[in-house]
Amino acid sequence: MSSVEFMKRVNDLYRLSALLGHLGWDQKTFMPAKGAESRGEMMAWLAAERHSRLCDPEFANLLSELEIHNIDNDLVPNVKEMRRQYDKAIKLPSTFVSQFTKARSEALISWEQARTKSDFSLFSPHLETLISLTRQKIEYLGVQDTPYDVLLDDYEMGMKVVDYDPLFAGLRSKLVPLLQEITNSEVELPKLPKEMLFSVVGQEKFCLRVSREMGFDFDAGRMDRSTHPFCSGIWPGDTRFTTRFDEKDPFSCLYAVMHESGHGLYEQGLPKEHSFSPRGQSVSLGIHESQSRLWENQIGRTTAFWRIALPWFKEEFPDFPDWDAKTIDLFVNEVKLDYIRVEADEVTYNLHIMLRYEMEKLIFNQELPVEKIPETWNQMFEDWFGIEVDKDANGCLQDIHWSMGAFGYFPTYTLGNLYAAQLLKTMSKQLGDIDTLIESGNWSGIGGWLRENIHQKGLQSSAAELIEEITGSVPSPEPFLNYVEDKYSRLYEL
Amino acid sequence: MSSVEFMKRVNDLYRLSALLGHLGWDQKTFMPAKGAESRGEMMAWLAAERHSRLCDPEFANLLSELEIHNIDNDLVPNVKEMRRQYDKAIKLPSTFVSQFTKARSEALISWEQARTKSDFSLFSPHLETLISLTRQKIEYLGVQDTPYDVLLDDYEMGMKVVDYDPLFAGLRSKLVPLLQEITNSEVELPKLPKEMLFSVVGQEKFCLRVSREMGFDFDAGRMDRSTHPFCSGIWPGDTRFTTRFDEKDPFSCLYAVMHESGHGLYEQGLPKEHSFSPRGQSVSLGIHESQSRLWENQIGRTTAFWRIALPWFKEEFPDFPDWDAKTIDLFVNEVKLDYIRVEADEVTYNLHIMLRYEMEKLIFNQELPVEKIPETWNQMFEDWFGIEVDKDANGCLQDIHWSMGAFGYFPTYTLGNLYAAQLLKTMSKQLGDIDTLIESGNWSGIGGWLRENIHQKGLQSSAAELIEEITGSVPSPEPFLNYVEDKYSRLYEL
Repeated sequence: MSSVEFMKRVNDLYRLSALLGHLGWDQKTFMPAKGAESRGEMMAWLAAERHSRLCDPEFANLLSELEIHNIDNDLVPNVKEMRRQYDKAIKLPSTFVSQFTKARSEALISWEQARTKSDFSLFSPHLETLISLTRQKIEYLGVQDTPYDVLLDDYEMGMKVVDYDPLFAGLRSKLVPLLQEITNSEVELPKLPKEMLFSVVGQEKFCLRVSREMGFDFDAGRMDRSTHPFCSGIWPGDTRFTTRFDEKDPFSCLYAVMHESGHGLYEQGLPKEHSFSPRGQSVSLGIHESQSRLWENQIGRTTAFWRIALPWFKEEFPDFPDWDAKTIDLFVNEVKLDYIRVEADEVTYNLHIMLRYEMEKLIFNQELPVEKIPETWNQMFEDWFGIEVDKDANGCLQDIHWSMGAFGYFPTYTLGNLYAAQLLKTMSKQLGDIDTLIESGNWSGIGGWLRENIHQKGLQSSAAELIEEITGSVPSPEPFLNYVEDKYSRLYEL
Repeated sequence: MSSVEFMKRVNDLYRLSALLGHLGWDQKTFMPAKGAESRGEMMAWLAAERHSRLCDPEFANLLSELEIHNIDNDLVPNVKEMRRQYDKAIKLPSTFVSQFTKARSEALISWEQARTKSDFSLFSPHLETLISLTRQKIEYLGVQDTPYDVLLDDYEMGMKVVDYDPLFAGLRSKLVPLLQEITNSEVELPKLPKEMLFSVVGQEKFCLRVSREMGFDFDAGRMDRSTHPFCSGIWPGDTRFTTRFDEKDPFSCLYAVMHESGHGLYEQGLPKEHSFSPRGQSVSLGIHESQSRLWENQIGRTTAFWRIALPWFKEEFPDFPDWDAKTIDLFVNEVKLDYIRVEADEVTYNLHIMLRYEMEKLIFNQELPVEKIPETWNQMFEDWFGIEVDKDANGCLQDIHWSMGAFGYFPTYTLGNLYAAQLLKTMSKQLGDIDTLIESGNWSGIGGWLRENIHQKGLQSSAAELIEEITGSVPSPEPFLNYVEDKYSRLYEL
């Protein structure tokens, strides 16, 4: 019977997480400004409540008891994951946990203001607090090889500086020359008429249609607006993602929607019978990101996709120039030395991630002071991209992550890109040519394959084990490098 | 120190209520259909959590301890209210509490469908469950003079059938002849051009403007849409209300917004230092309703109001007929024998309430079977209003309350009307002629008076005590009867 009591407590912990997730969604979409303070307190209270339940000695006893018995297969990932969470949580005082949660809520508000005004000083004291709390957290958890490793491992289990450094070095050594070649290419890129505006209503209709065709179920989810697009699992039957609209650029919204719908499909496909427990959650952030990147880039940024989607687009925007699918494909794959990570092409994207990774290494392993962050960022960006950052909103203020205390999160995006390429390769072996599938306009084969191989499995193994199980190979950057080299050689006639 | 521990626990209980309130708001505004099941479970879980904390023997000890000591004035209403809640809760098994909460969530969904399709059979099994659970609740709590009394007392402390019966009889004996006179009046009422449509965007702008002028702070609140308009306190700095739009009738939306903004102003004006405890809550539902009705009717449905608001309205709807303020006042005060309570004028409104009160008395004191509800409702409606109910959506399916298990709630609306009239009378004695104040276009005097005399006091006394404290008289129907007689005699030249 201890497994029944254990699962009851696990479910309660995950209910508290789901409530936190829901309040977080509301905070970023609909909450009025003056609600921020008490929202922060409420979330801090829930986090402290979760923490104290997780650290309950009776829960620890149940865990230990189940660890020495033969247990049901479905219980194994629950015990394993709760052990991991317990071992961390027991090291953190509950006052610290609620302090951290409250600081995050306050920082989020200040970040939004700072970003809007491109004024780092508005965010800086809150960032300082979050960094110092995070340093304290590292102390509590116990420094591994380097302090930053503690954070990296938190977001993708088993990944450390010693793993990322060579991986990123390998990627850079291939991507930088490719970028050079592209920059030198003489292929002429299509340009949008400068004065053309795309109504929000039209963009919304088009994007909802694409999302629906991807298989996102709007009776079990929603699309709303927020400064920074995100997807939130909320709970069974209710998955919500957000986007943002730019009347000058309809593609920014489209690819945000395809990205977040990719995440949303993962959430909607998780095994409902294991809701509110680790067993029913996604495998890792990296795997989650593979789902969003696969839809956004490997499906969405292809000529095949535009053969299907261009007529839908023209329905909303009949005045759009008379481009064919190939032209628009070239347009949406333009490689640009530009500021914004979420709008980056697939060649520069991982360079944006590496920059953040290096910044976080400097902050946590070299104690870079907060006031040095903008200039260090800008210098590194100029060194790598060859352009000067014009304002902090286009530099270190562009991403929401730090305002949420999510240091160590960024590298999982690169893992997502690598996993996505491996998955695509296997998918095409099993289902046949992907472009043909996309061009058929029936994407249920793709959706079904992802659902069967990934979503409905929930959490049963590590990310690396899952990738090996599906693709027959351990995680590796090769398929991704081959994919971008192929794709961009073709587009830029290299 | 027991008061510190007591308040910590009270705050936790009220945080759980606030979470329930927030999820309830989301459920009625943004939740996708398939989220209903797990939403119901989540709310049931929170309700059970609250219930078990309330029933904790240590909490009972703290209560008893504080009851025999001299305590701080602010603590008195907290101890008193928690004693009331504890004494009720301890009689209800926690499985019952979560069962009830879950049944409510399910019923809400079925009611929405039933109302849309005007099909009582879709709602009937859920209503059956809620009624039978409510009967069980009455058993648990212990029948008072009549079973229905238990429910009435739950929504307005100290009010029972023995109080309402003569009150309603008195109101009816005056309202029915007044209604007869009005029906016979030969005053010609203005009519809207039949084909005229009022855009949702225009209505929204106009209503937001009125709400803002009333003093509602949109940096500390929101207006959204739902089938049935409502206002939800959520928590400090974050008060949300809803409305609905009908392109054929902009006044329905306006008066819903004025009504809900009246509630919202009460919530926004409550003493923040007492948040998450009874001391920081409203006095009663009746007092809450007095705030909404005062703004909706006694301010909103006057010639003085339209002298100010008509130019705002014409800004959005320049094609509106060239009516003056007096004409529009006559139009929005039309006394109609019609189906819908929330759209009823001030003469028939209380008859709608009495009908619901009689229905609930039949259900709980006479065991009226669920399947008899529509025909009993329709028969009573025809007897009282002289018109036949054309469909259940216009009859027993029109209100949300039963789907929320809120039996015994309706009579508090009539109390609100009576209190509002008493308050208005006193306000005009203290601030001068109300029409002159309204017509000045500066409503901060009115808002300030309500804030000072009611909102910022929070909960320190009973509704009856508060009314006596402010007006110098005990609650009474006379000021209301004088008010409607005056108003409608003037409008209908009786």
